[in-house]
This record gives sequence, C-alpha cells and structure tokens, in this order.
Amino acid sequence: MTINPATNPSASEYPQTAQTTARRHRERISYDAGKVHALLDELYYCHAVIAHAQPGPMAMPLFHARVGETLYMHGSTGAGSFLNARDGKVAMSVTATSIDGLVYSRSWFHHSANYRSVIIFGQAQLVSDPEEKWDSFVALVDRLGPGRSGDSRSPSKKELAQTSVLKLSMDAVSYKERNAGVGEDPDDLDLPHWAGVVPLRLQAGEPSPAPGVTTEAPAYVKELHTV
Amino acid sequence: MTINPATNPSASEYPQTAQTTARRHRERISYDAGKVHALLDELYYCHAVIAHAQPGPMAMPLFHARVGETLYMHGSTGAGSFLNARDGKVAMSVTATSIDGLVYSRSWFHHSANYRSVIIFGQAQLVSDPEEKWDSFVALVDRLGPGRSGDSRSPSKKELAQTSVLKLSMDAVSYKERNAGVGEDPDDLDLPHWAGVVPLRLQAGEPSPAPGVTTEAPAYVKELHTV
Repeated sequence: MTINPATNPSASEYPQTAQTTARRHRERISYDAGKVHALLDELYYCHAVIAHAQPGPMAMPLFHARVGETLYMHGSTGAGSFLNARDGKVAMSVTATSIDGLVYSRSWFHHSANYRSVIIFGQAQLVSDPEEKWDSFVALVDRLGPGRSGDSRSPSKKELAQTSVLKLSMDAVSYKERNAGVGEDPDDLDLPHWAGVVPLRLQAGEPSPAPGVTTEAPAYVKELHTV
Repeated sequence: MTINPATNPSASEYPQTAQTTARRHRERISYDAGKVHALLDELYYCHAVIAHAQPGPMAMPLFHARVGETLYMHGSTGAGSFLNARDGKVAMSVTATSIDGLVYSRSWFHHSANYRSVIIFGQAQLVSDPEEKWDSFVALVDRLGPGRSGDSRSPSKKELAQTSVLKLSMDAVSYKERNAGVGEDPDDLDLPHWAGVVPLRLQAGEPSPAPGVTTEAPAYVKELHTV
C-alpha cells in the first residue's frame, strides 16, 4: 500500500502511477518525498506545461516556492490569463531540472550527463483566497533568502491585485537522478582517450547593490556568494 | 516582410507568429537569430514538450545540439518510442532557459530574476538517414568540447541502432531576456532595505578523471573549469 505525502504528510514516498512510471533507466527513478522536496527547494525555477494551452503546449519557465505538497508559481505570464479564462482547475505538469555534471567516456556512446529532475502532474489553479495568496507571496519572496519578506515592503492592495499566483497540487510525482562516474564498455578501457566527469553547479557571483543603497547586504545575500 | 532563418540562412530574424507573440513584457521579447543561436549553443539541455503525448504533455529534459536551424536532441527517452509509434512527424515545442540573476527590490512586488529563454515551435521526427544520424551524433558529442568526437571511439553498428536522435525544425522561434537592475517604485527609494542583483552562473568544477585514466585532460575540459 502506498500513501501519498500530498494527502498524508507523514508518508515519505509518492505512489507510483501510470504517469510516473519510467519507460527507460528505471534504476534512476525514485518516489522519495525527501529528494523531491530538496531539489524543488534548491532550484529557483521550474518549467510548467499546461495540457490544453493554445496554440499548443509549451514549457514556461516560472519562479516557484514549495509549501508542503503544494507548488506555488509566480503566474503573471500567459498561464495566469489562461487559467482566468478557464475559471477553474486545469491539468498541469511541472519539470524542475538541475544539470550536475558532464560525463566524458572513451566512446561516443557512453557520453552522458549527471542530473537531477523532478516531474509533477497535478491540477493547477489561480490562488484566490486572500490569506493563501498573501502566504504564497511570502513563500515566493522568501525563496530569495529566509526572512526576505520581512526585509522589504509588503504589497499594497493594488500590487496584490496585479499579482497572480498559480498553485499546483503535487498529485503524481517522480524524481530521476544520474549521479555516477563514467559508464564504459570493458573493451574500451585500454583506449588512450581521457575520460572523467566535470561537475557543474549554479553559483552566485558578487552581489551588486542598486544605486543609492548604503545598507550592508543581508547575510542571506552574502552567503549565496560564498556557497 | 520577414524572412525566416530556418528557410533563408542569411536572414537574421525569425518571423513573429501567433505562437511567438508575447502577451506580457513585450519589451523583453526578440526574434534575433544571433541571440537564439548563442543561448542554445551555451546551454547543455533544453526541455522538450510533445503536444500529443500520453498520458499528457510534460517537459522532458534533453541534451541538445544546434546545427543551423535544426535542433538535434538525444532522444532515447519516452520521446523516441513515442515518435517511433507515430511513424512520422509530431508537433513539439522546446524551451531552453538560463537563470542569470536574483533581483532584490525594496518591495515584494518588484523582486524578480534575470534570465534568458528561447522557445521553439516546430515539427519533430526521429533522424533516420544514416549520414544525418552520424553527423548529429558528432554534433551532440562535440557539445562536450570542440573535437571531442575525434577524441573518443565512434559507435559500432549496434550502438548506432540503440541510439535515437530527435530533430526539430526551428519554425517559430522567440527569445526572451531580462537583463537589468532593480525595478523600484519611486516612493520606495528611501526605504532602508538592501536592494540589488546577485548574478548566477553555471560553473564547472575540477575535472575528475575516471579510474585508470593517465592521459592529461584535453584543453576543452580544462578550460571549462577556468571559465
């Protein structure tokens, strides 16, 4: 029996569904809620796909924040107006990916990449409840640094009205990862070619204050650079 | 009159179509082929969406290589078997995104991100012509370093048969970018909060040779780390 973290927060695995069953590289897939949460909380954006979008489905990059088993996305894109027009829920999938390394093999065939990726299928809708909208806005701003929402001016009524937030219930979720060295055909091990892995990582540079800013950068900004 | 680089290589702009007309932030959109090419050639992967996929459209992370106005993708995922089953062309969109910075404003409302993103709409199919398949494989391997295909063993007949490559014609293409400082409401400029931009960049770490490799890493591998 599988218990879904989306409906039971003490569960640690998402149920395997038809949507989240891997067709290839089954050894790379996982339904572990901890891994899913960690990746979503590390990445700053995801790609959202609305199934019935016109003129055709496309992946939209959106800033996101996870709260429990709900993914909130800054929805002031075509997605917002689309959902408004539908006035309800719509099927959506979200993919969030990190490329973690380039894998150089002695053969073309085994060149690869290390990566982590989450795919979520669920129902999306615009957040309409005022309290939930406020809380989701806090969560989105705090993705730029814990407590950032307390370090900046909260929105006016007009700004709130101009902001649309999408929420996606994380109904069917899977996690895929390649985190390994070089795969190699045993016959190739004596070939003279260099083989190995080059790790990749999204890194923050030096913070650049806006004109007129005299206060010191907060710790959550400085720490990004040293990570 | 617009001339499409996909049909006329001397053209420098993609035509604006219904699919690639921005609904918001029109000032951020461009159809410049040079910008599109540069971003696709910098990024190691994209997210591909097959319109009519079952159980529903989702964004698949795929390694890609651009050759002229064709995007080749390593297709040994569900996409390959799906296209095989269809035995022909299928509508596909591809999004490739780079997050370039976090933008901290004095107000919640103006927090933002710097980014570059390309969206492509076109027809996808599996590469079946043996010569084109070979050339696309070269292009994909060379994305890990110019000349890498000459520095590793080319595929056997069996390996070639096991590899599927997707090709997408870049029919309708747009580019979006935010590359700016902090947007601010003039009334907020005297607030005491820190505001500024933290640049983000995908960076390579130290190459890690596979066990038994004694040759020096090639220049294209070493240079990744110093970039």
